[in-house]
Amino acid sequence: MAHALRLARRGLGNVWPNPAVGAVIVKDDVVLGRGWTQPGGRPHAEPVALAQARGAARGATAYVTLEPCAHHGKTPPCAEALVRAGVARVVTALTDPDARVAGRGHAILRAAGIEVTEGVREAEARALQQGFLSRVTLGRPMVTLKLATSFDGRIALANGESQWITGPEARRHVHVLRLSHDAIMVGGGTARADRPGLNVRGFGPVRQPVRVVVASGAIPDLPPEGPEYGPLWQVAGEIDAVLADLGQRGLTRVFCEGGGLLAASLLKAGLVDELIGYTAGVVLGGDARAAIGALDLTELARAQRFALTETRRIGPDLFHRWQRPF
Amino acid sequence: MAHALRLARRGLGNVWPNPAVGAVIVKDDVVLGRGWTQPGGRPHAEPVALAQARGAARGATAYVTLEPCAHHGKTPPCAEALVRAGVARVVTALTDPDARVAGRGHAILRAAGIEVTEGVREAEARALQQGFLSRVTLGRPMVTLKLATSFDGRIALANGESQWITGPEARRHVHVLRLSHDAIMVGGGTARADRPGLNVRGFGPVRQPVRVVVASGAIPDLPPEGPEYGPLWQVAGEIDAVLADLGQRGLTRVFCEGGGLLAASLLKAGLVDELIGYTAGVVLGGDARAAIGALDLTELARAQRFALTETRRIGPDLFHRWQRPF
Repeated sequence: MAHALRLARRGLGNVWPNPAVGAVIVKDDVVLGRGWTQPGGRPHAEPVALAQARGAARGATAYVTLEPCAHHGKTPPCAEALVRAGVARVVTALTDPDARVAGRGHAILRAAGIEVTEGVREAEARALQQGFLSRVTLGRPMVTLKLATSFDGRIALANGESQWITGPEARRHVHVLRLSHDAIMVGGGTARADRPGLNVRGFGPVRQPVRVVVASGAIPDLPPEGPEYGPLWQVAGEIDAVLADLGQRGLTRVFCEGGGLLAASLLKAGLVDELIGYTAGVVLGGDARAAIGALDLTELARAQRFALTETRRIGPDLFHRWQRPF
Repeated sequence: MAHALRLARRGLGNVWPNPAVGAVIVKDDVVLGRGWTQPGGRPHAEPVALAQARGAARGATAYVTLEPCAHHGKTPPCAEALVRAGVARVVTALTDPDARVAGRGHAILRAAGIEVTEGVREAEARALQQGFLSRVTLGRPMVTLKLATSFDGRIALANGESQWITGPEARRHVHVLRLSHDAIMVGGGTARADRPGLNVRGFGPVRQPVRVVVASGAIPDLPPEGPEYGPLWQVAGEIDAVLADLGQRGLTRVFCEGGGLLAASLLKAGLVDELIGYTAGVVLGGDARAAIGALDLTELARAQRFALTETRRIGPDLFHRWQRPF
């Protein structure tokens, strides 16, 4: 299952509106097939792994990070494919909360006499599938908020100069994170002031993330969709409604890169699931620009707490990741 | 020498105005004596180690983290003590920059026919002795600036509430750091607003650090000096002169805990040698209180850069340490 989870991770940012799933077929301690959800969400992980295994899957064990699907969509149900392949046992990490599956995949397998073990490495699978689970159960994508700041939490000097607070290694790492998200989101002020690329650069041809600009007013001309830029969606309105709309359109993982007002409205509404910090070894002072707008907090006890999940050095900077308990 | 450096570390915060030195006497791979500078700065490390070794030091090797002293102060010179003990070889990490020593310790040893090896693990010794080296060569103590902030660099809500942003583990760790400094320094505003303890609590009887309050106006009554509180020094004036004065009085390591104005004046004057950050997983927003006062920076390229030397989790918080290249 650890192997299947690593395979599943490859799909993050690439497979929306579908979940990123990994599958491994094993018989007599030999791996016969490995699959993960392909770009755009199809084919699913199980048929890819079964195709690799060919006829040898008969009597094998399939490890799948999510309950195999049970509904006839654009592909036939994976549960039936596993039955047809004659596997003897299926091990899954997570039940699919999608109403069209929700235990029916497991039921199809059991009805065919296949031994099913559920809930293996479930916590890891939940963390990996957080975007998909959020879309299906909360109706909105998971939101990651990124801040690249000075030691004292500033994103620019008072005169606006911000290039560069963090080093080239951290800035490149941001592109790795963009790659694992379905969309990059900024507010209208940032779109107007920085005309940001909002794309993934330096990794060859990739599925470019959707560019989401939250703005009611006009935004500047940004480059048209193409191999180097994802679709451009301008959205506006109350922030809960905006995220519900993005979920409706299929997004599972949204990477918010500012500005301070959009970040503040997300935080106030309790819509931030993960915080990513890049902290540089420089102090810019209280007159420099704050990373986050006003939150109007009057009690510390009411402030949302995030749990530290990762910290390490990236180039000269400090990288840290915090997760909302979910 | 690694062992001697570990012993030396025990003296930090305990031995000002003297350096924290470690000494190990070894013969035939057996450690005969171990010493470190004792509280208050005397006795020095070498006589402690030699006393442990008794007569057995004859023909032995002495590892000492700093060149043995050569001047008759309140104790006889350690270089002469090593000669009298009959050691065959002395290995040191650092030459003492104190004008009364400055190579004379090594010369005394060599003149007595002792083999001397200098510069072993010099970089580590320099880092350890940074406070003493700063006092002797720059005429001021080393300054560590500590900030305990939210993810976005805030130290309190707009209404002043600040208890607690970081967790109990981080707050206890602050006392460990206070213990390794000669003095705790705050500005007048902090002294008036918080009436801080500025002492070390929870570690039994210790040499309490000096309490330095930088304020020209009146400061509130703080507890009198005693077993639980160090001496209270009120100082005022231009920040370079204040630090020169503290160096003159013998301080080698000063731990600054705010407030924002004092921190800003230290940073503007380029007087901060080490930054310590405790970052909590909570976002307080741009309307909450900034950690540092205005720095009036107009060019990012002119901002002082610090190098990350340590990062780890302490309780729920992130601890990070940055060093000015020196």
